[in-house]
Parts: sequence; structure tokens; C-alpha cells
Amino acid sequence: MVHMPEPTKERLLHLMRILEKSEVPAVTSSHIEGLTGWSSYTIRKDIAWLGGDYGSSNGYAPSVLVPAIKSALGLDRDRRFCVVGLGRLGSAYLNLEAEAWEEFTLIAGFDTNVNRVEILKSPVPLYPAYKMAEIISRFQIEMALLCVPEAAAQAAAEKLVAAGIRGILNFAPLVLTVPSEIPVRNVYVVDALRSLSIQVKTHIGQS
Amino acid sequence: MVHMPEPTKERLLHLMRILEKSEVPAVTSSHIEGLTGWSSYTIRKDIAWLGGDYGSSNGYAPSVLVPAIKSALGLDRDRRFCVVGLGRLGSAYLNLEAEAWEEFTLIAGFDTNVNRVEILKSPVPLYPAYKMAEIISRFQIEMALLCVPEAAAQAAAEKLVAAGIRGILNFAPLVLTVPSEIPVRNVYVVDALRSLSIQVKTHIGQS
Repeated sequence: MVHMPEPTKERLLHLMRILEKSEVPAVTSSHIEGLTGWSSYTIRKDIAWLGGDYGSSNGYAPSVLVPAIKSALGLDRDRRFCVVGLGRLGSAYLNLEAEAWEEFTLIAGFDTNVNRVEILKSPVPLYPAYKMAEIISRFQIEMALLCVPEAAAQAAAEKLVAAGIRGILNFAPLVLTVPSEIPVRNVYVVDALRSLSIQVKTHIGQS
Repeated sequence: MVHMPEPTKERLLHLMRILEKSEVPAVTSSHIEGLTGWSSYTIRKDIAWLGGDYGSSNGYAPSVLVPAIKSALGLDRDRRFCVVGLGRLGSAYLNLEAEAWEEFTLIAGFDTNVNRVEILKSPVPLYPAYKMAEIISRFQIEMALLCVPEAAAQAAAEKLVAAGIRGILNFAPLVLTVPSEIPVRNVYVVDALRSLSIQVKTHIGQS
């Protein structure tokens, strides 16, 4: 993966999503500016990180630019993850169809409750939490969806880090304390509701 | 709600989360700059939108600033929402504890499958989808968590808009087409995994 700055990575990821949905043969940097608010200069500089010549005056071709971004961001290869905490949310993710995960592959599920591990139906193998280090190392699992309750989340995160996990998607409503080289993304549903609610026009004159 | 620009709202929301977790009596704008990357000038300008005098040279007091932001963003009052689509993900959210939703109140669940509506256990009333307009209007429901499968999501979104919903949190992997005055937030788990994965240092020398 190219060692580009984090904000550039984030913008390229976002740009890739826009271009994937685009049905036009070429988009210009000023068109992208209109969709994203980033300046044309920023957009051209970000795309320059990809190294190739992707056109600019006549616009960028999504069919060429999308694979280039995927490759630069490491999204063109198999990435393995596991689900930790097999309550309602965890087992909902456990049972998504494999195709829904796109380039990601769900390898295993973990829970501290051995009974639950034995009883739950699942398309992938389930293991008791004490086997984390063995399974994460054996199957080279990079990331974890952390779906345990808030009170158990920090301890589970520490176990995951000790087991060799490289990144955590955190569904619990707390800020995890993990070593700085382990990225954490917080995807708490109430935060998303708050972001939505501040954009909502409130009810006026509705009975 | 004050008519502030959307980027200001987003930054204030983020700032509120940082301050809520802060245990110091006062934070300076340069401290916030270090945490967020926003310039001190931007931070002071955003806070000026709140209208009051919240101090600046000696720093801002979280105990004063957090309630002011909450009030300005309309997060200090009851906001009502429903869950649409009662599959695994939808029923996982249906069964979160009421306290987990903080200032939001889950009012109802909807599904097109009448059988599912009758059988599912739920702490809130469930209704067949054809009752959406009646229930959303009667209970003044503002927002919906859209948890239906991808193929059904656009049609369900259109029904919700016709029923008077004011905002949608979309869990399906597609861009919904709705009137521009209805905000939509996409919270697709694969997008979150992609954002995480581009920050992950890949396995090196691990067997």
C-alpha cells in the first residue's frame, strides 16, 4: 500500500464510492468538487498519489480510476475479519450472506459464553473467546467486529489486541483504549442517529 | 434550532462528544485543534454560532458548553424513531434497552410480513407496513432505521416519505432516491470496514 496521508486515503475511499455508482464515462474534478466540497486542487493532488496518469482536463474515467484507487488502498485483495460477541447484533452480522461482505471474508465468531458458541447456528465456525489468539493467528484474521455489551468491550478489545488483531470496528458506546498502532472505528448507532437528527427539519403544524 | 451551516453542526456535534468524555474543567481551542485538526479560528467561529459567551482565553468549560450545543442542535428533547424491517438487524435494534438510545425514543417497528409482526417479541408495538402513515403521524415519529434487504429498501424509503418521515438512517448498501428535504445517513457496515481496513497495518512476518 502506498504511504499516503490519512486524509487523502479517506477522500480517495469516498471518491471511489461516488465513482462506483457513476454511470458516466468521465467525471471532471469540478464535478467532484460539486459533489464533495473538496477543492479541485485537493482532488487532483489526491489522485496524483496514485502515481499514474488518469487524465484531468477531459475528466477521470471511473472504469480506470476505481481499480487504481482499490489497488492503492489495498481493497483489491481478500481481507479477513471475525465477529466478537454473539448477541443479537453480533449474530445478525454473523448471518449476513457472504457476498454482502464484498472483498472482506468473515472467518470466525467468538463469544465468552461456551454454551452460546455450541448452540448458535452460523455459516462460519464459532469458538470460545479463549481460543482467540490461536484462531486469529492460524487464519491470519486482520480485523474484528466488536459486538459485545459496553461493560465487556474494553476487556474484549484488550484480548483481541493481545491475540494479534490489527484493527477493530467498535459497536459499543465507549472509546476503547488500545495501542496507537491498532486503528479503531466507532460505529455506534446513537451517534449516527444524532448526526441524522441535526439535519432533520422538525415537524411543524403536524397533528 | 439555530440555522447554522451544516459543517458547523457536524463539528459542534463532534466537539460535544469529545467534551462529554473530557474530565478537565476547561479546554482551550488549541487543545481542541490538537484533537480534531480544525483550526482555532474555525472552532471559535463555530462556538460563536451558539450566541452566548462561553469563554475563550481561559478555555471552554465542558459543563457549560455541552448543554449549549445540545440545545442548539435540538438534542435536548425527545426525538422519536421507528425501525422498519424486522429481520436480524432490525430486531437486534428493536431489542436494545431503552436507555441505550439516550435522548431518542423507539416508538414502533414495521414489517411487510404480517406473520412476523404478530410473532416477534418486542418491547415496543409492531405494525404491518401498511399502517406506517397512520402510526408515524399519530405518534409524531421523526426518523426511521431502515433495516430491510437491499432489494426492498428503495420502495420502503418511498413509503416512509409518503408516510411523513423526516429522516432515514439507511443500513442497506444502496443510495436511496428521496426528496432533498429528507436527510439520509448511510451506515453500511462494509463501508465502515473499508474505512477501517485502509488504516490497518498489514500482517508482516506472521505465520
